[in-house]
Amino acid sequence: MLFSAAKNYTGESIEDLLAGSKIALARIISVVENEPSMMAKFLPKIQSELGRAHCIGITGPPGAGKSSLVNQLIKILRARDLTVGVIAVDPSSPFTGGAFLGDRVRMQDHYVDSGVFIRSMSTRGEFGGLSRATKDVVKLMDAFGMDYILVETVGVGQTEVNIIESTDTVIVELVPEGGDSIQAMKAGLMEIADIFVINKSDRPGAGELAAQIEITLQMNYKEDKKIPPVLLTQCIDGLGIDELVEQIIKHKGSSHKNVLENRLKERRQKEFDEIFADIALAEWKKLLESDSKIRETAKSVIEGTLDPYSALQMIFASGSILKTGSKT
Amino acid sequence: MLFSAAKNYTGESIEDLLAGSKIALARIISVVENEPSMMAKFLPKIQSELGRAHCIGITGPPGAGKSSLVNQLIKILRARDLTVGVIAVDPSSPFTGGAFLGDRVRMQDHYVDSGVFIRSMSTRGEFGGLSRATKDVVKLMDAFGMDYILVETVGVGQTEVNIIESTDTVIVELVPEGGDSIQAMKAGLMEIADIFVINKSDRPGAGELAAQIEITLQMNYKEDKKIPPVLLTQCIDGLGIDELVEQIIKHKGSSHKNVLENRLKERRQKEFDEIFADIALAEWKKLLESDSKIRETAKSVIEGTLDPYSALQMIFASGSILKTGSKT
Repeated sequence: MLFSAAKNYTGESIEDLLAGSKIALARIISVVENEPSMMAKFLPKIQSELGRAHCIGITGPPGAGKSSLVNQLIKILRARDLTVGVIAVDPSSPFTGGAFLGDRVRMQDHYVDSGVFIRSMSTRGEFGGLSRATKDVVKLMDAFGMDYILVETVGVGQTEVNIIESTDTVIVELVPEGGDSIQAMKAGLMEIADIFVINKSDRPGAGELAAQIEITLQMNYKEDKKIPPVLLTQCIDGLGIDELVEQIIKHKGSSHKNVLENRLKERRQKEFDEIFADIALAEWKKLLESDSKIRETAKSVIEGTLDPYSALQMIFASGSILKTGSKT
Repeated sequence: MLFSAAKNYTGESIEDLLAGSKIALARIISVVENEPSMMAKFLPKIQSELGRAHCIGITGPPGAGKSSLVNQLIKILRARDLTVGVIAVDPSSPFTGGAFLGDRVRMQDHYVDSGVFIRSMSTRGEFGGLSRATKDVVKLMDAFGMDYILVETVGVGQTEVNIIESTDTVIVELVPEGGDSIQAMKAGLMEIADIFVINKSDRPGAGELAAQIEITLQMNYKEDKKIPPVLLTQCIDGLGIDELVEQIIKHKGSSHKNVLENRLKERRQKEFDEIFADIALAEWKKLLESDSKIRETAKSVIEGTLDPYSALQMIFASGSILKTGSKT
C-alpha cells in the first residue's frame, strides 16, 4: 500500500463535506493538516467536484495591508451573495512558535457569517509542508462549494511564490515605501502578478511607484501575456476596491479562459511532480532505517567518509531508483 | 548507470584543481553549473579533501551592506595571508535575466589577487537549483584549498536560508531601518545566526535595534546554544570589522568544535536527502515520457480527470516507489 496512513481512517466523512457540512470541512482540513497523506484517501472522492471555485492569491511585503484587502473583498463578494473561503498563510517559525493572529481580529464579523469560512495555516510538517497543505485546503474548500477562495500569504519567499502560483488570479499588493518594488521584482512577483495594487495610495510616492511598475511591465511585454493593471487603493477605507473587483471578474472572465486552462494544466503537472517527490522522500526516509547495511552506508555519508553519490550507487545497485510496472 | 551525464566527460581534470590551478577551479565550477550531475563524477575524488575551509554565510535584507562586509572581510583575511573564496548568490529572475552586478564593482581589486577567487551565481537549473549549485561550489573551493569561503546571499527566502544553513558561521546583517528585525525573525534568521551585525550603526535607531535583538535572543535562550553576539559596524569605512573577525575566529575555535561537528553531520544528512530527491525527480521526469501507458496516465492527471494519488498507484503498481537492493 502506497499510503499506509490512509487505510485506518474512520473519522468525518468526505460525503458530509460534499453535502455542505461546515463542521465536516473544518474537521477534514484538520485531519489533512495533521496527516497530509490522508489526501490520498479524500482526493479521489472529490476530484470530479474540483475547478468550480475561483481562487485569488493575495501577496506582498509585510505591512502592505493584505488582511485589509481580504476583508474588503469578503464584504463585496458577500454583498453579491457569493460564498468565500479564506486561507491565511503565515510562515511558522519555530522561534516565534506560530502565526501572528493580531491582523485577523478585524475579520471577526465574518467568522459568524455562514457563507464565509476562514482558516489560518502555519503548519510546517513533513510531506511537502505548508505549500502542499495550502493546496489541499484549496481543494477541500472548492469541493465544499465555495464560489471564491482567497489565499493570503505573508512575505515573498519561495514557499509563498509556490503557493501563490497555484491560484487563478494573483494580486500583488505593494505600498509606497522604499525598496518594495525592487524586492517584488527580485522575488519573482512581477512575473506572477495578474493585478497590481498600490495600497495606502494617499501616501507620498504612490503615483511614482505605480508609474515605475507600469514602465517595467511594458518593457518586459510579451505577446502571450496581458499587461497586468496597476490599481491604487486605500483598503482600510474601502477606496478602489470596486475597481479591483471589476478587474478580478475581468480576469476570471471568458476572454482569459484559455490562459486559465493552461495555468491549470501547468499547476496539475507541477503538483503531480510535487506529490511524487513527497512520497518518494517519505519512502527514502524509511528506507534509510530499513536494514543494517543501508543504515551503515547512510552513517558513512553522515560521518563524511563516503560521498552521497557513491552511497546512492551502493543503495540502488540496479542503477535506477524508481520501481515501476507490474508486480515483479 | 545512475548518472548518465558523467560518463562521457573529458574536460578539465579535478587533479589540476587539487594541484592548485585556478583555471581548473573556474572551469570545473562552470561544468557543474551547467551540468550538476557532473558532481557525481567529481565528488568521490575530492571527498577526502573536504572540511578544511571555514565557510562563512552572510545574509540580510537588500541594502544592509553585505557586499561591503564581504569586501572588508577579504581585506583582513588577506592581510593575515589567508586565502579566500567568495560566492555571491543572487536570485535569478527570468524577468530581470540574472544577477545585479553593480555592487560587486567595489571588489574589483580582489579579482587580480591570486589568493582570492570570486564567483557570482545566479543559475536556476533543474536538479536542486541554486542551493545545490552553491553547495557544490563551496566543496570545490574547499578542495582547492581556500582557507575561508564567504557566501553572500541577497534576500531572506527559503532558498537563501537553505544555503546559509549549510555554512559554518552564519552572520546576519541588519540595518537600523523599520521592519528589518521583524522580517528577520519571520524569515527564520534569528534561529540560524551565529553573529548579528548591525551595519550603518551611525544611523538613528542602531542601538535600539541591537537592544531589541539581544532581548529577543535572551528570551529564547536554550541551553544547547550560545547566545550570538550583536555587533555594531560601519562596513563602508571598516569600523567594527576587527571585532567581527575576532568573533568569527572565536566561533570557529576549539570551544565550538562539537557544535560545528554536529552542524556538519546535520548538513550531510540534509544534503544526502536533497541529492536523492534531485535524482529521483530527474528519473521521474524521464519515466513520465517513457512508455505510452504512463504518458496516458500522466495526461489524465494534467487534464484533471484523474487525481495524482490514484495515478501514482497505477504507475507504481507494486505499492512502493523505490527500487533497492541487488540486481533482480
